[in-house]
Amino acid sequence: MTTPKITAVGSVGLDTIITPTGKREELLGGSVVHFAVSASFLTKVGLVGIAGDDFSEEHITFMKGRNIDLEGLELVENGKTFRWTGSYLDDFNMAKTHRTDLNVFADFQPEIPEPYKSSQIVFLANIAPALQLHVIDQMNESSYRICDTMNLWIDITRDELCKVFEKVDIAIMNDGEARSFTGIDNLIKAGKKMLEYGMDYCVIKKGEHGAMAFGKNNFFTAVPAFPVEEVIDPTGAGDSFAGGFVGYIAEAGNHDHETIKKALRWGSVMGSFNVSDFSCDRFRKTGIEEINTRVAEFETMI
Amino acid sequence: MTTPKITAVGSVGLDTIITPTGKREELLGGSVVHFAVSASFLTKVGLVGIAGDDFSEEHITFMKGRNIDLEGLELVENGKTFRWTGSYLDDFNMAKTHRTDLNVFADFQPEIPEPYKSSQIVFLANIAPALQLHVIDQMNESSYRICDTMNLWIDITRDELCKVFEKVDIAIMNDGEARSFTGIDNLIKAGKKMLEYGMDYCVIKKGEHGAMAFGKNNFFTAVPAFPVEEVIDPTGAGDSFAGGFVGYIAEAGNHDHETIKKALRWGSVMGSFNVSDFSCDRFRKTGIEEINTRVAEFETMI
Repeated sequence: MTTPKITAVGSVGLDTIITPTGKREELLGGSVVHFAVSASFLTKVGLVGIAGDDFSEEHITFMKGRNIDLEGLELVENGKTFRWTGSYLDDFNMAKTHRTDLNVFADFQPEIPEPYKSSQIVFLANIAPALQLHVIDQMNESSYRICDTMNLWIDITRDELCKVFEKVDIAIMNDGEARSFTGIDNLIKAGKKMLEYGMDYCVIKKGEHGAMAFGKNNFFTAVPAFPVEEVIDPTGAGDSFAGGFVGYIAEAGNHDHETIKKALRWGSVMGSFNVSDFSCDRFRKTGIEEINTRVAEFETMI
Repeated sequence: MTTPKITAVGSVGLDTIITPTGKREELLGGSVVHFAVSASFLTKVGLVGIAGDDFSEEHITFMKGRNIDLEGLELVENGKTFRWTGSYLDDFNMAKTHRTDLNVFADFQPEIPEPYKSSQIVFLANIAPALQLHVIDQMNESSYRICDTMNLWIDITRDELCKVFEKVDIAIMNDGEARSFTGIDNLIKAGKKMLEYGMDYCVIKKGEHGAMAFGKNNFFTAVPAFPVEEVIDPTGAGDSFAGGFVGYIAEAGNHDHETIKKALRWGSVMGSFNVSDFSCDRFRKTGIEEINTRVAEFETMI
């Protein structure tokens, strides 16, 4: 087995999604799944996650058929996969959670397969900061570390999250999380403040308004969202954004300012594919040619 | 008297502004003032508006000292200038109006001075659509027409506003206005829909999230806001944005896609100066060199 360029750790789940256009059940979901499907268009991803034996063979075949290594996916016998039910009825920018069943995810202790440990990049999708730290401990020192997070961890495990921020090279958050973590309403100030927690770059995602990145020496860049006329299901948009962003950095092989700028464009484009259909279904219907075309189109637009 | 490149028509007022940092009274304000002060860094502006004899000589001297022609400013003897009191206490994106005294502005019937009629561009700042139409009727056919508007006119004089949209080349609105006018929540769809009302381009301003422009043949572009850490007073930010946008178009002497893209950057930069101090005070402390530097900096950022 070869070492994937990216090792990604996060949730694997089955989602039930309610939108104005209808309800869809037991869809392939989870932060690391959305991330890996997106990033796999750019590079090989080793996925670390946990699922039950109710996790359909079809999902496994789908991911294996892409550039995703599943050596790190633990399948628990007689276990049930993590399930989440959410709706977007009033606002596509904010999911309303109806139900969460952690199931096997409650006992997730990510163990990194030996060949993954020397991945160029480790991506810590949204899981408890303690688990993110446990992953960092297992990876080679040389791995470039990029993390995501969520409001829950800011509220209940802030100290551990601070330790994660000290150890990562890039932290990705959304606007609400950046405001809540720093207590600063102005996003430009909040983004700069984040850098004091130790990372080299902080990326702030703003949904339909695009994303911004802050770096040392007053580095700042911003990108609009790729325009989407029909949002079908935004679940996983942030993870798909991260997949394009991290995938581009992995392929570029460096993380200078110019790379970060271009990586944001890939994030924006991959996010736009994600929201155009349920689950990661839009990615099933595309290839790198269409994605490259959209990136080029985006660069002309802006 | 020479013909100004831009003729701009709108309100001239004295504002009382309440923000978390304090209250300031009787500040120079009004849509056409903010517009003209911003655009005057780029080109000569002929201002058409109305004020009372309580409008301080100091304000007139300030504007005359810039590239602003005041032949079109009617000063009403024994009349009082338009006054507005607003606050930004919870949210810098939305003013709360405390008091509006129209005074002489209630009877405003814009008369365009003869030399202004052949201006290359006429900018119709936020005034009643009937007055905007009255201005269009006085201008030479060849003048390029750009308008702004506000929610009030969408709500109470929609039919006349539609006539304005039929006659203008570019309509500038904010996100809430575009949503309210079209009844479409998705801004990309709303922007495209606007083009059906007849204009060549529709520009949608999104405050701290930048701006987008839509044009025929599926033209789309977007620009983030220039980052501002300390918002002091956002009053007039949209007008200053329009000043940079229209001023750039006037100087470019055309209105092709490439010009519109660059004009948005000028809009974004001029908006960022506006919000950094009360009234148009930040513009008093800057010159074209600093503005050029900021535009260049912005282009590097994005």
